[in-house]
Amino acid sequence: MAILIDHIGIAVRDIQQAARLYTEGLGLRLDYIEEVPSQGVRVGSLAVGESTIELLEPLGAEGPIADFLEKRGEGIHHICLLVDDIRAAMAALQAQGARLLQEKPARGAGGSLIAFVHPRSANGVLLELCQRSEPPSTKGAET
Amino acid sequence: MAILIDHIGIAVRDIQQAARLYTEGLGLRLDYIEEVPSQGVRVGSLAVGESTIELLEPLGAEGPIADFLEKRGEGIHHICLLVDDIRAAMAALQAQGARLLQEKPARGAGGSLIAFVHPRSANGVLLELCQRSEPPSTKGAET
Repeated sequence: MAILIDHIGIAVRDIQQAARLYTEGLGLRLDYIEEVPSQGVRVGSLAVGESTIELLEPLGAEGPIADFLEKRGEGIHHICLLVDDIRAAMAALQAQGARLLQEKPARGAGGSLIAFVHPRSANGVLLELCQRSEPPSTKGAET
Repeated sequence: MAILIDHIGIAVRDIQQAARLYTEGLGLRLDYIEEVPSQGVRVGSLAVGESTIELLEPLGAEGPIADFLEKRGEGIHHICLLVDDIRAAMAALQAQGARLLQEKPARGAGGSLIAFVHPRSANGVLLELCQRSEPPSTKGAET
């Protein structure tokens, strides 16, 4: 059900500074920078293979990335696995006792569905699941 | 030069326990478990897309993973990017001031070449580079 590593999210203080390692040092391209005010974050996206590295810079003093930087400093914040059926994955995870941060999938960018597994249920890893979009055949049939 | 995410290494106390999230919850397969006594670690490998998730369990009280667990608890230990030319990548990283943990690439599994970027030069991320094998045409021509 997990298909690939969608992205690795890295909390940084300055996207432009952090991106240089990956662009000048490793030949990647900073494809775009996007602000997500609802999460208090600016995202710098670097594609690598079928995955992306997301550099996450806080927009201000509030929000999960600002909190993370305050407590732990810069570093890997979360990893995200692409799944084909996020509801089935959430049910399977809950069936084996994993704690999820959402009861139902939340809306992510571009019509995607996302959910997070609590780090206590994932060996200290903040694990995000995403499904790129609803399969059209099941739309409206979901409860 | 960076081609894809080769693997994400996660420090865990018990591979079998940690693997259940990924196998029973997310449909991945624990492809193999390998002991690397030189690193004091047992590696459980789960393929996902073109990448792998490596669950890293210490063999004893010594070694980098045992130290990491002692200091920080379970969680993401490092990420590894596959590069096409590790020496060129190391030179480019050093040219922009990054500190590497090796002067020259070290030998990794299966004839691969590996090197690590110090977390202080990579925004708190322990970043591994690997090159799967030497291109035959340049073997012996390297200095």
